[in-house]
Amino acid sequence: MEIRKAADADKTAVWKIIKEVIASGDTYVFEPETPQAEMLDYWFSPEKFNYVAVNGDDVVGAFWLKANQPGLGSHVGNAAYIVSSAAKGKGVGRRMAEYSLDEARRLGFESMQFNFVVKSNDVAVNLWKSVGFEVIGEIPDAFRHRTNGMTNAYIMYRKL
Amino acid sequence: MEIRKAADADKTAVWKIIKEVIASGDTYVFEPETPQAEMLDYWFSPEKFNYVAVNGDDVVGAFWLKANQPGLGSHVGNAAYIVSSAAKGKGVGRRMAEYSLDEARRLGFESMQFNFVVKSNDVAVNLWKSVGFEVIGEIPDAFRHRTNGMTNAYIMYRKL
Repeated sequence: MEIRKAADADKTAVWKIIKEVIASGDTYVFEPETPQAEMLDYWFSPEKFNYVAVNGDDVVGAFWLKANQPGLGSHVGNAAYIVSSAAKGKGVGRRMAEYSLDEARRLGFESMQFNFVVKSNDVAVNLWKSVGFEVIGEIPDAFRHRTNGMTNAYIMYRKL
Repeated sequence: MEIRKAADADKTAVWKIIKEVIASGDTYVFEPETPQAEMLDYWFSPEKFNYVAVNGDDVVGAFWLKANQPGLGSHVGNAAYIVSSAAKGKGVGRRMAEYSLDEARRLGFESMQFNFVVKSNDVAVNLWKSVGFEVIGEIPDAFRHRTNGMTNAYIMYRKL
């Protein structure tokens, strides 16, 4: 598996993964019905640094990095990650997590903040804790989980 | 003092207040040098509901409301507020705060979240606490305060 900068040619493969991820309505805020164009405009918006994890010709995961705030708050980074269903449980998320923290340092970020980690998303919460993130806040009833209803979200943070 | 929806004709007056507010670099993340066009594009971006507080012909304050997250998180509102230096200490902030909470309810939001209240901004922190907000998280070194250096930011929240 290799991680590299995303190219325009990766967009269709990234959309396929996004579509899978949002279909379940249990981890990401985007409605399962969000159209491809809207989703790709968001995922590849100009202020983001975009990466993909590839296995041969297959895109198995993707993530982006950006500043969490403009101006006087721009030293804190933010990121989002997706893994294809076929590649789940194979360490793709962890590889992207570690790579992205190094890359965030390289880009000059001093810390990383996740604004919205669904509390019941154990895989994500445990992954982030295992690479040094702490829960610094909890938003009550932040997420309309498709099967469990109103669910809290964590705000997670670590210094770089 | 009256609060009403903002019109295109209010933009120049709103910019004057934003410019004053960001000049000090002690409460808002925007660089004091942020250009007018960039700032107004942000303040009046299409997903926002914009309001102004007026005293006769003078715009003395402004605020906006929007969803803090898309899709499955869109029931949580978010907002930002500015008061002109000439109108400070005259209850404009409190009037806008109370009005905005009613308006957020009317728009269907179930709660309100502020993602970035500079911890040393006592006027704001105390105002929000006095109208029912709680600190639900604290971001270490989130803000490069122009005079005090690295400063924490609060995440504040209340149900509506």
